Amino acid sequence: MHLNLKLVDDILGAALKEDIGTGDITTFSTIPLSTEAAALIHVKEEGVVSGIFVAKRVFELLSSDIKFKALKQDGDKVGKRDVVAEITGPAREILIGERTALNIMQRMSGIATRTSRIADILAPYKTKVVDTRKTTPGLRILEKYAVRTGGGHNHRFGLYDGVLIKDNHIKVAGGITKAVNSARQKAPHTLKIEVEVENLQGVREALNAGADIIMLDNMDVETVKEAVKVINGQALVEVSGGVTEEKVGVLAEAGVDLISVGALTHSVKALDISLDIGHIKG
Amino acid sequence: MHLNLKLVDDILGAALKEDIGTGDITTFSTIPLSTEAAALIHVKEEGVVSGIFVAKRVFELLSSDIKFKALKQDGDKVGKRDVVAEITGPAREILIGERTALNIMQRMSGIATRTSRIADILAPYKTKVVDTRKTTPGLRILEKYAVRTGGGHNHRFGLYDGVLIKDNHIKVAGGITKAVNSARQKAPHTLKIEVEVENLQGVREALNAGADIIMLDNMDVETVKEAVKVINGQALVEVSGGVTEEKVGVLAEAGVDLISVGALTHSVKALDISLDIGHIKG
Amino acid sequence: MHLNLKLVDDILGAALKEDIGTGDITTFSTIPLSTEAAALIHVKEEGVVSGIFVAKRVFELLSSDIKFKALKQDGDKVGKRDVVAEITGPAREILIGERTALNIMQRMSGIATRTSRIADILAPYKTKVVDTRKTTPGLRILEKYAVRTGGGHNHRFGLYDGVLIKDNHIKVAGGITKAVNSARQKAPHTLKIEVEVENLQGVREALNAGADIIMLDNMDVETVKEAVKVINGQALVEVSGGVTEEKVGVLAEAGVDLISVGALTHSVKALDISLDIGHIKG
Amino acid sequence: MHLNLKLVDDILGAALKEDIGTGDITTFSTIPLSTEAAALIHVKEEGVVSGIFVAKRVFELLSSDIKFKALKQDGDKVGKRDVVAEITGPAREILIGERTALNIMQRMSGIATRTSRIADILAPYKTKVVDTRKTTPGLRILEKYAVRTGGGHNHRFGLYDGVLIKDNHIKVAGGITKAVNSARQKAPHTLKIEVEVENLQGVREALNAGADIIMLDNMDVETVKEAVKVINGQALVEVSGGVTEEKVGVLAEAGVDLISVGALTHSVKALDISLDIGHIKG
Amino acid sequence: MHLNLKLVDDILGAALKEDIGTGDITTFSTIPLSTEAAALIHVKEEGVVSGIFVAKRVFELLSSDIKFKALKQDGDKVGKRDVVAEITGPAREILIGERTALNIMQRMSGIATRTSRIADILAPYKTKVVDTRKTTPGLRILEKYAVRTGGGHNHRFGLYDGVLIKDNHIKVAGGITKAVNSARQKAPHTLKIEVEVENLQGVREALNAGADIIMLDNMDVETVKEAVKVINGQALVEVSGGVTEEKVGVLAEAGVDLISVGALTHSVKALDISLDIGHIKG
Amino acid sequence: MHLNLKLVDDILGAALKEDIGTGDITTFSTIPLSTEAAALIHVKEEGVVSGIFVAKRVFELLSSDIKFKALKQDGDKVGKRDVVAEITGPAREILIGERTALNIMQRMSGIATRTSRIADILAPYKTKVVDTRKTTPGLRILEKYAVRTGGGHNHRFGLYDGVLIKDNHIKVAGGITKAVNSARQKAPHTLKIEVEVENLQGVREALNAGADIIMLDNMDVETVKEAVKVINGQALVEVSGGVTEEKVGVLAEAGVDLISVGALTHSVKALDISLDIGHIKG
Repeated sequence: MHLNLKLVDDILGAALKEDIGTGDITTFSTIPLSTEAAALIHVKEEGVVSGIFVAKRVFELLSSDIKFKALKQDGDKVGKRDVVAEITGPAREILIGERTALNIMQRMSGIATRTSRIADILAPYKTKVVDTRKTTPGLRILEKYAVRTGGGHNHRFGLYDGVLIKDNHIKVAGGITKAVNSARQKAPHTLKIEVEVENLQGVREALNAGADIIMLDNMDVETVKEAVKVINGQALVEVSGGVTEEKVGVLAEAGVDLISVGALTHSVKALDISLDIGHIKG
Repeated sequence: MHLNLKLVDDILGAALKEDIGTGDITTFSTIPLSTEAAALIHVKEEGVVSGIFVAKRVFELLSSDIKFKALKQDGDKVGKRDVVAEITGPAREILIGERTALNIMQRMSGIATRTSRIADILAPYKTKVVDTRKTTPGLRILEKYAVRTGGGHNHRFGLYDGVLIKDNHIKVAGGITKAVNSARQKAPHTLKIEVEVENLQGVREALNAGADIIMLDNMDVETVKEAVKVINGQALVEVSGGVTEEKVGVLAEAGVDLISVGALTHSVKALDISLDIGHIKG
Repeated sequence: MHLNLKLVDDILGAALKEDIGTGDITTFSTIPLSTEAAALIHVKEEGVVSGIFVAKRVFELLSSDIKFKALKQDGDKVGKRDVVAEITGPAREILIGERTALNIMQRMSGIATRTSRIADILAPYKTKVVDTRKTTPGLRILEKYAVRTGGGHNHRFGLYDGVLIKDNHIKVAGGITKAVNSARQKAPHTLKIEVEVENLQGVREALNAGADIIMLDNMDVETVKEAVKVINGQALVEVSGGVTEEKVGVLAEAGVDLISVGALTHSVKALDISLDIGHIKG
Repeated sequence: MHLNLKLVDDILGAALKEDIGTGDITTFSTIPLSTEAAALIHVKEEGVVSGIFVAKRVFELLSSDIKFKALKQDGDKVGKRDVVAEITGPAREILIGERTALNIMQRMSGIATRTSRIADILAPYKTKVVDTRKTTPGLRILEKYAVRTGGGHNHRFGLYDGVLIKDNHIKVAGGITKAVNSARQKAPHTLKIEVEVENLQGVREALNAGADIIMLDNMDVETVKEAVKVINGQALVEVSGGVTEEKVGVLAEAGVDLISVGALTHSVKALDISLDIGHIKG
Repeated sequence: MHLNLKLVDDILGAALKEDIGTGDITTFSTIPLSTEAAALIHVKEEGVVSGIFVAKRVFELLSSDIKFKALKQDGDKVGKRDVVAEITGPAREILIGERTALNIMQRMSGIATRTSRIADILAPYKTKVVDTRKTTPGLRILEKYAVRTGGGHNHRFGLYDGVLIKDNHIKVAGGITKAVNSARQKAPHTLKIEVEVENLQGVREALNAGADIIMLDNMDVETVKEAVKVINGQALVEVSGGVTEEKVGVLAEAGVDLISVGALTHSVKALDISLDIGHIKG
Repeated sequence: MHLNLKLVDDILGAALKEDIGTGDITTFSTIPLSTEAAALIHVKEEGVVSGIFVAKRVFELLSSDIKFKALKQDGDKVGKRDVVAEITGPAREILIGERTALNIMQRMSGIATRTSRIADILAPYKTKVVDTRKTTPGLRILEKYAVRTGGGHNHRFGLYDGVLIKDNHIKVAGGITKAVNSARQKAPHTLKIEVEVENLQGVREALNAGADIIMLDNMDVETVKEAVKVINGQALVEVSGGVTEEKVGVLAEAGVDLISVGALTHSVKALDISLDIGHIKG
């Protein structure tokens, strides 16, 4: 899956700096330099694990003497007490990296778990669940990766790699047709043009203007069904706003192509994961 | 409240770079340079608002022509449709900053809202609710600030500004007494020494070793009560692990000094807040 | 035109650091602190000017006491001796910024000038001239901006915001159809899929696979004409490779949508522009 | 040749970030993780190659599994179809690095090629060809290195490591003598003092003021000859401005020490170089 | 001893960039690439050595081919001609790193030497010598580490990890009691509260307000003795201001817990250390 | 005096980040946001003040509401109780910036004071006192500026802007003549070539090789005198190594051009300067 690992290193470097600062006083003052330890990372509730490679990288950045053996893969369904990874090496660095590794992996796994519940419902349909830009500032590439490991797909990554004309743009630009024409003229030809509409009249106007993707915002299921008929395959249909897990199946049944869910990333319940020191040596 | 604003600027600079990248194609291709707009930020559900100054700073970083007038203060209780701020200025920059400002403020307000529910329960007692290091990588100073605006207090900021001897340290160091003595010898005299214990025997050992703060980890309420009696004011008492809103009152009643709650920051439900363009000019 | 000004500041900050280093010894040792000067930036040959706002920003970054008055706009056709801007303020900072401002503006104007010659030929047709990723490392956003000011259009900005399946991808992936299908499955739905083909068979295979854009690579004009007929509006047609100014008109006549020209940015002849100090005060 | 490799890494890191952004969508969506490939970098026209070590470094920064075997050295004269390097390793990283490696090497080779044409003419004389500060912002150290590989020499690297009193300085300082005296007094004793003059009177004034190097700016050949006689070995003689390849020999014949040519770096024609995937495995 | 090595790398990276800039012209122009050399670092006067690991890191950052063998440890007492380390590897990189390595190690050893003289006097007592925030900007973690290797202890690292209410705070806050109460209310519970006082009345007020540490500022020895009696073990006692090596023993005798000495870091006499090339090869 | 203020801002930004970290807990918890104060910076011992503009910049970076009025200029001789600057504005930011401003200004003034003592001795002679590269890592530009304010001159700033062939280079290169010739061939023509020699034979060899500057290293006064005669104005003469204030006059008398003193920057005694809050408002 596409992911620039240099950007991940930047994120982890900043995270470690934030937590370690001038040094881990507790560890340095209680644990001898020479002590080696073995530790397990295990999950404490059911879910989908994501971010194992990130946890591995945290420990690699702290010490080249740490061995990190992954026993699960990103995207695996896991249950209580499943061991995700074994870590061996200098006790100090294991203890120093523990919290940062867990903070990220718990968050990513929480995202993957929730995405996966929706993706499972959508499995029998062509409909895909996609994320939004409602991500945690600074962590977008990791959160969008977590969505993919949960079986979801990514919407644009930022303001620079997609054209999504929303209500505020339409209002300021003076209407759907005007906005779409202007975007068609000025945006790179490599990008599709998506328009957010709030009713069937908007659907028709967007369609006539030649939108490539039409986002149905906060519409009830009946209107969605009608919109799908109106569009009739001439544009991709995306549904957005107030999508609950209950509504997902009905929307898929209605034939929409994409369902975007902001809560995948803006209201994450962390998956409970912990690290426990086992054997100690020296 | 203590907060280094330069660090906030670093966070926001990175967040804007992540979202805007090479430029906002939609806005630049649909909105004329000269268009001015007015917008309102309003909340869509009950809660405690936090991060207004951060939203303000997002727009200041984008354009010196934007006026941001805060109508609420961080820490204020707000209800549905309350207007938090008025923004006027160049339409392009308002649209470019919208998502980043909301992403951060929604998250901070979610934290403040949850903290405030617990702080309200604790109001009649001396007991304080405090946060943990289970924060989002890169956003710790904002999340800890949000805790304070919700009426909570901060635990240490990282591994560098506090001594907290946890189960893994004790296991590796060879016991509570040994760990506390070693820390006392080597850590700066300006820091208190806190020890996490799991049973009453641990409480007694920590007390004898001279711990300044004793953290009771995952104990049932009865054991907590007994621990408070044993400690008898010779150390601060902190309770941690599996603290639900229901248990908070009972723990306070038991006389603990501090209750730390990881979920304040690791499992945040964003407060629903939106930005709507009103008047347009030019 | 879309352009993240913060990124421009990063580029200019680095450029100034590269040139000034620990300080401009010549200026500091020959020009008194209090001397004020007026200077003109004028072009010394015909062309299209671009990057005036960048030159302005260079001087703003050096001193808030410098006034920079632009007399031309980016994209304007200019002739010998035309004055592009007037600068007044502290003589030291004007002299310190001179070379950096000119280096960038000369390069950007060189790009705009060349682009404009092609754009002028294409004016009667629907065909657009577009750039490539053959830009100077670190200056891509400025060079792509310069292309736009010359009347050209932008192709994707990098590997992250477009899908362009080239010969090497096809070879490794095992064929056009396989590559397009795989991309359709995994790339965000917001991006069009472009395929580079080398002959008519490739055109047909890309068309059948559902490519949104077909790039005809290094084909002779006759083959291009046939390809346009085969494609027949079902995909955008882009021509690339060995495009000279002479061939541009013929290709447009053939009905292609886009002509991409690497030399716009990889082999730039700087437009001759200079800065001359006029009045001096103090 | 002197070159701080850490600065090269900074340039390449930024270049890769600019091109790859959040990830190479085409490569990740069409090429399997496990595919290995072999590729050749070969030149497609005559010239002097430069920047091979930079291309090597690009791939090293992307993956430690890539083997890069250079078959030519920087400064070698090359002809059509000459193979410069063989690359083997993970197909994805080879494809991701291709454009960045080529963009830089093509530019550097273009500079070396042009420099070499002039250096060849100057071979029988003591005269050296030197570069200027008219380089691409951010790439100065690489461009100055390319000049050296083409047989040229470097002028100062920036405003901080040389004293070059130009027409604008003289105008503001109030004359050549005043400017030279002031520089002599204040600049570090480790630096020579160079003065740009426009006529023979300037030559004499600079000489009397004790300039170490005199730059003859835009003078015709006859005046240059006379200036060389006047200076008579008491200062180094540098010629600058409007130097064509045709004039170079005549100037050398006249006995000047240095000829500086801005076009070496400000108007580069990239050398045509490409990368082609050969064998594929897995 | 606690020290975040990533921060050390940042310091050394900046130091090398400051010194090397675009490249070491002398070394590159006089020493062939292939020359190998062996060198010794030896001290030229008595003292305590500190920063050997930093010198090692300097050379590691310059070349992975350099072997650095430490013959002493940080904190060792050394005499004239003692060899601290042997270095072998490429001659160029050894010469390039020489000055940066020595600059840091000489400074750190100077700090350790002075600290050690005081720590030796204090050895028979419980009293510790501690540093202050009067460190060199940018080098605080290294200077505080040097204090520890000399047998001293660290005070807080910055404004963020300790509460020290000084005269200016008291003046602005409106008195000791008010300031201490306010700090107790708002500062994290993990930090002790220290108050600087200037006379016995201040001592009593601080004690009543519940200060954890009382700093006696610039008091004569008699007053210090009385203060120790008044405090009587209810708070830690720190003496600060005008502490000479002569006064240290008397203060310890008086029973103070801590003596802080700004001159440890603000007025450092570098220990004389040099690097000499021995064998040369190739 | 030449000094790139952007680099100063980088140094101060890092220094403030080092000291303030996540926030000044003492100040935020004891001083109300609205309190305004006035403060004086005054010196407490005789010396030469340097770095006033740096202190000013520290406070500007912290708050645009602070007014900093300098009453002395860098380079002024000052005595006990002299007021250097008046500061008014928000009490919090004054207290937060105090230590960083003083740390830098005390160090710079210490350097200026010592330099000035030597410069005063040299006043009747042509001889200049110059600094070395034995500066504090990260602070070189400020320390070299401080030398200038004390009446000294700067040697090269780093390895990149001067050629200084030292004993280790000569040993590895195989002799003075070989080293000088090689440097002449490869170093930019804008730089003088300096050679360090240890005896009169070295002086002669350097002179014959055409060195521009000859550094007499650790020679006794008699040998220095003879060397000056041998050189006889054909090169600049610099004396280095073991220069005490006592020897300075004798060396000047001997006719050397430059005396370099490492201790100016490697063993600085800070000038005693303090900041005191006066009036308080609000």
